[in-house]
Amino acid sequence: MKIYVVGIGPGGIDELTPRAYKTLESCTIIAGYKRYVDLIRKYFPEKSFMISSMRQEIERCENLLDAVKENNVDGALISSGDAGVYGMAGLMLEIASGSGIEVEVVPGITAANSAAAVLGAPLMNDYVNISLSDLMTDWNTIAKRLVLASEGDFVICLYNPASNHRPENFKKACRILLKYKSPDTPAGYVRNIGREGQEFTIMTLNEIQHCDKIDMLTTVIIGNSQSYIQNGKIITPRGYKLE
Amino acid sequence: MKIYVVGIGPGGIDELTPRAYKTLESCTIIAGYKRYVDLIRKYFPEKSFMISSMRQEIERCENLLDAVKENNVDGALISSGDAGVYGMAGLMLEIASGSGIEVEVVPGITAANSAAAVLGAPLMNDYVNISLSDLMTDWNTIAKRLVLASEGDFVICLYNPASNHRPENFKKACRILLKYKSPDTPAGYVRNIGREGQEFTIMTLNEIQHCDKIDMLTTVIIGNSQSYIQNGKIITPRGYKLE
Repeated sequence: MKIYVVGIGPGGIDELTPRAYKTLESCTIIAGYKRYVDLIRKYFPEKSFMISSMRQEIERCENLLDAVKENNVDGALISSGDAGVYGMAGLMLEIASGSGIEVEVVPGITAANSAAAVLGAPLMNDYVNISLSDLMTDWNTIAKRLVLASEGDFVICLYNPASNHRPENFKKACRILLKYKSPDTPAGYVRNIGREGQEFTIMTLNEIQHCDKIDMLTTVIIGNSQSYIQNGKIITPRGYKLE
Repeated sequence: MKIYVVGIGPGGIDELTPRAYKTLESCTIIAGYKRYVDLIRKYFPEKSFMISSMRQEIERCENLLDAVKENNVDGALISSGDAGVYGMAGLMLEIASGSGIEVEVVPGITAANSAAAVLGAPLMNDYVNISLSDLMTDWNTIAKRLVLASEGDFVICLYNPASNHRPENFKKACRILLKYKSPDTPAGYVRNIGREGQEFTIMTLNEIQHCDKIDMLTTVIIGNSQSYIQNGKIITPRGYKLE
């Protein structure tokens, strides 16, 4: 009996690693948020799936733990991207603690990296990942982190930039960044990364604050002071001296 | 004619995505730093390889660009982990600019995520990636970023924590972090992630500063104020309220 928390990458089967694929193949039960299960379900027709809704994360972990114990089988809990980045890895470890069931995390490609590849090479220097969801982190902490990340001239990758419950967080975040970063700083978003309907746009920080495409299916990357746009890509130089 | 910059993940073929595999299969020439080419060479016996040493990054990109143009073929440039994180993606885009040759970045699992999975779930909240290599970023900038990341209570992932050329950078970084973070903050390193000889240890920030295993093949993760160690794993809670 073992539980694997598996990052399935951005969504296409082509970005699921062989290790993640084999892990899912080896498990009897696969649990996950419905949207993510739908992405992989057809590749594992023999499996027993446990589907749950958003905000049922605790129940999802508890139910999988119970099912694994009851049936004496291995189970997998999937997250999109990497399970260890705003995903299910930590919660599953917390909930399984003391159960005697071992939990192994199988990494996947997280949205920062898949978005960066679409946008060019914005993350070539030091960067931060900040989630704008204030469900579990208070806004003052998020705002403070945005200030410090700007003061450090980090490239900034924003997860969960906006949702129906908090449509204003992204604009509020941009207003903070604009106090420290040039309005011309390159910025881009990718929506539905690696999935049907993928779209992206590259613009400036000043422009992206007004962009109405930013929602919970979107990842946003804002460059540092050295970033520039060339041939429709964002490049943050690593610092090599080119002639 | 096209150039792909491909992240091969931590090193094992099991963590190379199908997309990356197919991309390498589709190219005539594969270029890269010798250590990384050696990791994948046996899976692509038909390919023409262009091998270069460390610190020959500019020549590596220029030579691949020339070879692709001369032979009118597709070429791949590989990076370990993700090519967009301290890898070759940015430089290749810069060097190919104006050549008329399109460059596409194929993402891979970067060391922060593969190390985190080995250590448990340390990256569940906002985190920064900082490289301690001062070859291309001056130490004052690195030191300032370490301070700001600590003030923001970010989880901190250190790339290139030490090398033969700068053995002291890691200890200097720890001394900075210890001014802001508790000495009991969970910290861990993973060496040779996903490769033969993988090893990891979990300890405290106070202990890791004296650790003599930290070198250029190592990734270090230092928790935030909420991180804790349980069953030999580092967990940074996302913030779910558990009973």
